[in-house]
Amino acid sequence: MKLFSFWRSLATFRVRIALNLKGLKPEVEFVDLIKGEQCSAAFASVNPLMVIPALIDGDGPPLFESLAIIEYLDECYPRPPLLPSDPKGRARVRGLSQIVACDAHPLVVPRVRNFLQHELKLDEASRMKWIHHWITEALKALEAHLSRDPRTGRFCHGDEPTMADLCVVSHAAGAKLFDCDASAFPTVARIVETCLEIPAFADAHPLRQPGAPKAA
Amino acid sequence: MKLFSFWRSLATFRVRIALNLKGLKPEVEFVDLIKGEQCSAAFASVNPLMVIPALIDGDGPPLFESLAIIEYLDECYPRPPLLPSDPKGRARVRGLSQIVACDAHPLVVPRVRNFLQHELKLDEASRMKWIHHWITEALKALEAHLSRDPRTGRFCHGDEPTMADLCVVSHAAGAKLFDCDASAFPTVARIVETCLEIPAFADAHPLRQPGAPKAA
Repeated sequence: MKLFSFWRSLATFRVRIALNLKGLKPEVEFVDLIKGEQCSAAFASVNPLMVIPALIDGDGPPLFESLAIIEYLDECYPRPPLLPSDPKGRARVRGLSQIVACDAHPLVVPRVRNFLQHELKLDEASRMKWIHHWITEALKALEAHLSRDPRTGRFCHGDEPTMADLCVVSHAAGAKLFDCDASAFPTVARIVETCLEIPAFADAHPLRQPGAPKAA
Repeated sequence: MKLFSFWRSLATFRVRIALNLKGLKPEVEFVDLIKGEQCSAAFASVNPLMVIPALIDGDGPPLFESLAIIEYLDECYPRPPLLPSDPKGRARVRGLSQIVACDAHPLVVPRVRNFLQHELKLDEASRMKWIHHWITEALKALEAHLSRDPRTGRFCHGDEPTMADLCVVSHAAGAKLFDCDASAFPTVARIVETCLEIPAFADAHPLRQPGAPKAA
């Protein structure tokens, strides 16, 4: 198994947590997003959208998109499960995950930030306003869901980690990376803290990967 | 079963196709996105992110996020299946779906277009450049995946529709709505044409919903 990864990628952070929880140790190939290695012809042949993560299991072909990869891992390596067993619970966990992976994170990834800067000529203040807005919108939606739903437990859904926790933790790491104030979202903060006490989460953190800056 | 819908919503278009394919006929409650009804307190209690679609099945609670709703429908109403039976095939269908539902569509939805216009003060030319860019990036990635992978058949994955076709058709409808040239993507175009010959797809089209403008 081979994972295409980069320390800073929040989508890859989610996949790293899933791999750790399931005790899988893939070979890791680094794709330096800051140097633009994701746009090389070699990597485009792995993933035509030229984003990470990508995962090759066995004889391939490469798997792409973080949530699709996590669901694949959950189907092929089912212990511990990352989705609940009931359809409405699964829909809730997938929905919470998608608030992060569809409605928030894609708005703040490098290719989008680059487009805002170089194509639309937005200054740094405008770009930070953009980033903070979408990160905060997702935090608001997550807090509303998590604080009012009796299915929330120690984790997003019950008392064991699910795919939703992987996404919420990656979102919180993004909020921190961009100096976004998350103090108004206590349920999110509590769950993130609980997750990061687990080595599978903590060891997958962007700042603990090779190539990450030494100080946070 | 109750669906929260609006004619123009591309994410709801995907869910309407799934419902049609499975022969389900929910009650429909319209949420007028142009009037901003998704921001009402009543709808925020259904979906705190204040976006559609949302679906209530039985005694609830509301389900949210289009792909989570489609997977729920596929689990509870399995005929015809919208995901293949093998894990790598499922990962491919989910990945193709997420190219649309994660990496493209969230960048061009009303709340994002409004933010670009009213908060970042971008003029119409800049906003159209933005929209066309992200729609085209996804078309490129879809075409690369679909044209080179032997698993592509009459549809995105084999010879029966899957969740990926729902997403690709909604993306093509978005491209058309925004006058985005899709002629350079022949595999995508062929699959979209094949899909729209099926009543379950055609009847779900935005321009065939109550409230849609009479002319395309």
